[in-house]
Amino acid sequence: MRDGITICVVGAGSSYTPELIEEIINLPERDLPISSVRLTDVDPARLGIMTGLAERMVRHAGKKIVITAGPDLRVMLDGADFVITQIRVGGMQARYLDESIPLKYGIIGQETTGPGGMCKALRTIPAMLEIARTVYEVAPQAFILNYTNPSGIITEAVRKYANLRLLGLCAGIPGIQEDLRQRLSPRYPDLRTYTVGLNHLGFVHRIFSEDREVTQEALEWLNADTDAAATDHIALSQFVQAVPISYLGYYLHRGSKVELVKNLPQTRAQVIEELERDLFAEAADPKTITKPAILAKRGGGGYAGITFTVMKAIYGNTGEEITVNVPNQGAVDGIDDDAVVEVVCTVDRRGATPLPVGPIPLAFRGLVHAVKAYETLTVEAAMQRSKRLARQALLNHPLVGDLDLIEPLLNEMLQAHGLHFSDE
Amino acid sequence: MRDGITICVVGAGSSYTPELIEEIINLPERDLPISSVRLTDVDPARLGIMTGLAERMVRHAGKKIVITAGPDLRVMLDGADFVITQIRVGGMQARYLDESIPLKYGIIGQETTGPGGMCKALRTIPAMLEIARTVYEVAPQAFILNYTNPSGIITEAVRKYANLRLLGLCAGIPGIQEDLRQRLSPRYPDLRTYTVGLNHLGFVHRIFSEDREVTQEALEWLNADTDAAATDHIALSQFVQAVPISYLGYYLHRGSKVELVKNLPQTRAQVIEELERDLFAEAADPKTITKPAILAKRGGGGYAGITFTVMKAIYGNTGEEITVNVPNQGAVDGIDDDAVVEVVCTVDRRGATPLPVGPIPLAFRGLVHAVKAYETLTVEAAMQRSKRLARQALLNHPLVGDLDLIEPLLNEMLQAHGLHFSDE
Amino acid sequence: MRDGITICVVGAGSSYTPELIEEIINLPERDLPISSVRLTDVDPARLGIMTGLAERMVRHAGKKIVITAGPDLRVMLDGADFVITQIRVGGMQARYLDESIPLKYGIIGQETTGPGGMCKALRTIPAMLEIARTVYEVAPQAFILNYTNPSGIITEAVRKYANLRLLGLCAGIPGIQEDLRQRLSPRYPDLRTYTVGLNHLGFVHRIFSEDREVTQEALEWLNADTDAAATDHIALSQFVQAVPISYLGYYLHRGSKVELVKNLPQTRAQVIEELERDLFAEAADPKTITKPAILAKRGGGGYAGITFTVMKAIYGNTGEEITVNVPNQGAVDGIDDDAVVEVVCTVDRRGATPLPVGPIPLAFRGLVHAVKAYETLTVEAAMQRSKRLARQALLNHPLVGDLDLIEPLLNEMLQAHGLHFSDE
Amino acid sequence: MRDGITICVVGAGSSYTPELIEEIINLPERDLPISSVRLTDVDPARLGIMTGLAERMVRHAGKKIVITAGPDLRVMLDGADFVITQIRVGGMQARYLDESIPLKYGIIGQETTGPGGMCKALRTIPAMLEIARTVYEVAPQAFILNYTNPSGIITEAVRKYANLRLLGLCAGIPGIQEDLRQRLSPRYPDLRTYTVGLNHLGFVHRIFSEDREVTQEALEWLNADTDAAATDHIALSQFVQAVPISYLGYYLHRGSKVELVKNLPQTRAQVIEELERDLFAEAADPKTITKPAILAKRGGGGYAGITFTVMKAIYGNTGEEITVNVPNQGAVDGIDDDAVVEVVCTVDRRGATPLPVGPIPLAFRGLVHAVKAYETLTVEAAMQRSKRLARQALLNHPLVGDLDLIEPLLNEMLQAHGLHFSDE
Repeated sequence: MRDGITICVVGAGSSYTPELIEEIINLPERDLPISSVRLTDVDPARLGIMTGLAERMVRHAGKKIVITAGPDLRVMLDGADFVITQIRVGGMQARYLDESIPLKYGIIGQETTGPGGMCKALRTIPAMLEIARTVYEVAPQAFILNYTNPSGIITEAVRKYANLRLLGLCAGIPGIQEDLRQRLSPRYPDLRTYTVGLNHLGFVHRIFSEDREVTQEALEWLNADTDAAATDHIALSQFVQAVPISYLGYYLHRGSKVELVKNLPQTRAQVIEELERDLFAEAADPKTITKPAILAKRGGGGYAGITFTVMKAIYGNTGEEITVNVPNQGAVDGIDDDAVVEVVCTVDRRGATPLPVGPIPLAFRGLVHAVKAYETLTVEAAMQRSKRLARQALLNHPLVGDLDLIEPLLNEMLQAHGLHFSDE
Repeated sequence: MRDGITICVVGAGSSYTPELIEEIINLPERDLPISSVRLTDVDPARLGIMTGLAERMVRHAGKKIVITAGPDLRVMLDGADFVITQIRVGGMQARYLDESIPLKYGIIGQETTGPGGMCKALRTIPAMLEIARTVYEVAPQAFILNYTNPSGIITEAVRKYANLRLLGLCAGIPGIQEDLRQRLSPRYPDLRTYTVGLNHLGFVHRIFSEDREVTQEALEWLNADTDAAATDHIALSQFVQAVPISYLGYYLHRGSKVELVKNLPQTRAQVIEELERDLFAEAADPKTITKPAILAKRGGGGYAGITFTVMKAIYGNTGEEITVNVPNQGAVDGIDDDAVVEVVCTVDRRGATPLPVGPIPLAFRGLVHAVKAYETLTVEAAMQRSKRLARQALLNHPLVGDLDLIEPLLNEMLQAHGLHFSDE
Repeated sequence: MRDGITICVVGAGSSYTPELIEEIINLPERDLPISSVRLTDVDPARLGIMTGLAERMVRHAGKKIVITAGPDLRVMLDGADFVITQIRVGGMQARYLDESIPLKYGIIGQETTGPGGMCKALRTIPAMLEIARTVYEVAPQAFILNYTNPSGIITEAVRKYANLRLLGLCAGIPGIQEDLRQRLSPRYPDLRTYTVGLNHLGFVHRIFSEDREVTQEALEWLNADTDAAATDHIALSQFVQAVPISYLGYYLHRGSKVELVKNLPQTRAQVIEELERDLFAEAADPKTITKPAILAKRGGGGYAGITFTVMKAIYGNTGEEITVNVPNQGAVDGIDDDAVVEVVCTVDRRGATPLPVGPIPLAFRGLVHAVKAYETLTVEAAMQRSKRLARQALLNHPLVGDLDLIEPLLNEMLQAHGLHFSDE
Repeated sequence: MRDGITICVVGAGSSYTPELIEEIINLPERDLPISSVRLTDVDPARLGIMTGLAERMVRHAGKKIVITAGPDLRVMLDGADFVITQIRVGGMQARYLDESIPLKYGIIGQETTGPGGMCKALRTIPAMLEIARTVYEVAPQAFILNYTNPSGIITEAVRKYANLRLLGLCAGIPGIQEDLRQRLSPRYPDLRTYTVGLNHLGFVHRIFSEDREVTQEALEWLNADTDAAATDHIALSQFVQAVPISYLGYYLHRGSKVELVKNLPQTRAQVIEELERDLFAEAADPKTITKPAILAKRGGGGYAGITFTVMKAIYGNTGEEITVNVPNQGAVDGIDDDAVVEVVCTVDRRGATPLPVGPIPLAFRGLVHAVKAYETLTVEAAMQRSKRLARQALLNHPLVGDLDLIEPLLNEMLQAHGLHFSDE
């Protein structure tokens, strides 16, 4: 990879863009010599605001980075080394439907899993494949770093149906690994943690210190620590003997979680929609020359960090161990080779290669397999536009499963999103 | 195996015994020359009634088969070629608890899966291992044919923790294969059907005729046939593109099934208890010299047929293909080698060897893996008397899963059954 | 697939072409309605002779099939439903080198395996990928039926590095299955045979009759039959408890086979070169209007039969079970998913899907794995033009293995073929 | 495990015993509080000499360890926590046959692999199973640490056919890992190395430093270092891109190695026999109160070190990562679960659990699979006393393979060792 890295951001009208730009500004050039950032989006208004802010941020920081922007994906991709995809097909309105319709059936409404996650995938996969094919034609050597949700399903679809170097990123598990590193390192020098699972159903299941495994005792020590035990992920660890992402709570407390979400005054989509109104106003203000303060409330932070950690490992060919979504290729026992898993990978010039994992611990093996079947069926349903496969996806999902609910729910959601699927 | 086969029935006080005796009487001696039948049970009253009836049935049929009976397992096992295990630890009273307590939590009450099946396994595994160890000492070459429920879990426990030749039998899937043979053979000559799954979660997933696969078209043809489509298993096949055992209905219609069972006037345990009262009265009557008529109402028939089909294949070393519960040994992709699956096996003098199956079809892969994790965790929970593992078993079960229900439900059930498990 | 099938033969100047044409003439139109045959080759003289003969054969038979020919692959491929590839890069002169150079080092000289097979693959893979890419552009829906040797390695290279529907054919194992069918059917009705292994290292390892396995007894019966035991494949079966392709003799009698080949007056390449001279003279003669008689001496017959058997199964979507070379996809335990194996597949409109096989029998498991490692390393060596990988390929091959021979042998062969590989 | 550890040494008449005793004397008591050492052997003379020396060594060192000795295995085993097995069935005379007979056929003579290793296994497996069964009856909780050769095959036989906690040890690969640690640590801090393969066919295939993989660059650096490149294992690494045990030379230089061994004036058995004469004379001398100096010439040192490293990890429940021979259990892709591999394990109170490894690198995958098939077939041949299986074992071995040599060689060796095997 030559000097003078070019990055193309697809979906640059997203409210995450200022965080990306801030991270780019703060990167030591030696680690990753970025010389050009291209911004593109299907929404010209949002793209315009974010482009203006990006330019002001770079200028204010005194960096020599060229910002280019435009609506034509093909033009923006030309010569890109990395492509960041962060699109949201249907916008917040579609998210609102994904979050609210399932609740009517007593099922969790969520944009990354369950019926909501499935519908988000069904409308996003065709758009992502379209983008991927354009990357293949214009910049075939580029790495695509995806954090469009549901990240694992999107990664599986693109890796199966387009011949591309795409990695699925998520800040969730890396954040937990960092939290464990901070809590455990004083007691356990030279800490290493290994992970197994799927996006938003991941687990830190093995902890090593100085060439020996300490998982059991480290978990006991964490659960005995009041401060640690107050975090969701450590509280949940006592049930599964591994530190899970806090999304596991949706499964372990499925009844009470639905009640909780039902009783919220607003869906998450509505909250964010309001927040984004203020955010874009602040971003559009010519006086704003750094990351808008309001962004801290947006949630989902840390993405920019993991994105550039991965980029640096690829550019520097370092072989660093990072948790990424990739095709399984034998890493996790019992999962198809081309099904995507979220595990520790060595990341270098060839991309991300999963470290061998072995068997999924029994304590959560059934959950992971059930959600994996749902994910792979969702990919196939999107490709074949098949209601039969979408129904099977929900039949396998631990939080759905009941055909008597699936039939009407699926019909309502497909119709609400204007998705025309065949019965077969 | 020499001539003059000796069969030992453990749990011979069961109401299934007359069916076994009738089958033995009807067997052509050339196929299986049975010369001795040993009956044993922990309940002397029920054993006495069944022994008397068995003697009268054999005498009436004019067969030269010696019937022996006694309470001492060790004595009855001596020299046995086959051991049939059909025990029920705790009797109908325990079954009543398994069926009724879960309903209070809105969860299915069932003696072969879910919280009920788990509790049945927890109390039955120690008893079965005790029997297995006695067989190992007294008749190490004997084959054990088990149809104590939950048959798959019991088989997994005994195969893992005692070094014995045990096969887990169930008449469910073989009955469906026979039904398909009758329906399809006129149209599809030289029919073969292959199966995948677990006990009470099995599927006929591939159909061959004359060296070619016809699964897809045969299923369409069956679903278009009014008579066939009226059966549970063919009706359900349209959702999963394979012919399932009808227990799949518990998963696919989980909400309505719980409502249905809740609204029944009696649990299944209560129904059978009443029925057995009449049955034992009839059996005890010296005028009864054939299988009591009332047995037809008992359900669960066909066991005797499959039992002797397997025995004949072992004795004759025929290599016949029969669906049996055995350790997976690589047959089904993604399942542990020592976890038990229910698949087509070649059965001969060495026992049952599973035919290779390959991947579980995606349409029901998540369900099978989730139930398999529940099963293996149940075995471990029984061996370690561990509440933590029992909780994890239910966390993985598709019909349970919610920790907020599992905690109180598990405590209530363990207490009701007098099972003292450690928290760890 | 529509009516009026178009077949394109690549390498149509081959002496196998008359056999293909004869088979096309004899096909019942109902099974496969071929309306057009396209012939192409890089050698215009041989192509001209074969085109003339093909036209006379079709006309003489009174068939309405259009024969077209030309040197431009792209033109000939347009609209093709099936593409048959039967090329020989370097011609008989290259084959002579592959067969004679290894003998100087005391190693078998052979065009389908060992150093000779490797060199044939190294020069053929780039040519086949070039053809595959053209098919992808011009006729992406076409099936490629390959019998360019080494068929397994070529198939693996094309399936890994081009996104195409290619099946690797070989008449060897299907011929043995047919031989077994004829010998065993009188005694064993409704015979089915299953196979495992690689191209030219295949084994019929399981024999079924009427829903039961009879492998052991059938093998004993065949070996007791004087006529059967006189065939190479049945004679060899006593050592490995499976019926192998006779190429296994190269491994089991490695010392004496090298001596035998060394002492032959001519290499196989020289024999065939002389034979082809006569054959092309006969083919060019306008009086020749049927398959030349001299072709019977050519060897390697039966290819045309298996080719059209496969075509009929694809066209008719029959799901027929045929032994074909395909990516393993989990069929054989312990082999990579994308490594090619030769096993029984169901063949239909989607191509060839391997039936699950399970473990390779221990009797020959080491041989198969060693040759598979050699094959996959050969593919990688060809793609990277790497001497290091070519050396590793031969290190793994059971008939080579000795580094002190590999170094000079490899240098001599690469130089003789004009292949410029890097040291890395 | 309680305080006051008891160790039983089976085959204590071995010349390795003084090294064990020296290591015991030097152990800090806190790490492993050994209070009793039991010595037993079938040869009373050798046992007597070693017992006397052991008592003098312990007394001289001023340690409070009770030495007990006697010929009765059952008595010596009673209460043992660890059992060390280091037997040599047939003594040096049998080893001489294993080393000399194959050479007559142009095949390597070697006591750990090939025909020699096979014959050593065939006569040792029944003896080891007998010992294992006695351990099972008298001290079922004891760990057996085996370094009877061929260590991998012996481990596989005992783990498959006796239900025991046995670990197969070998100092070879741990010694190479230590060598790499010393050479690489200055440049690569926090070094971790991972291994794959079989006993005497092992490879250090992955090297990590500070959470990133550095295998490729570390190997290049080692090969550029004159001193390192002079060692066998690093010299060989350039051919297979991993650091192998030097036994790989037997495979890579198979021709020249046979010539070299043929031309030696004495077999290894004869060399050691002479050396042991002097050694036992020195050991029997009452003035000898420390490890005899002559032992340094014996070779095979380091065993005692690895033995107590493993014991300390088990006793202290530390989870330390140590390379050990254990059943594969899914660690290495493509190897049977119950076949034994030599890989890095975490060692703790439960024994040794292999870390997941994933695929065997292609560069030596064929060799490892071929030798593994040979090993598993050797175990089965020993259990069934079957010539057919012994022949198949040698057919799969990369250094044998030729049936025309195997038949006479096998007959001669079985006869020389007085082993009566059936033809089947």
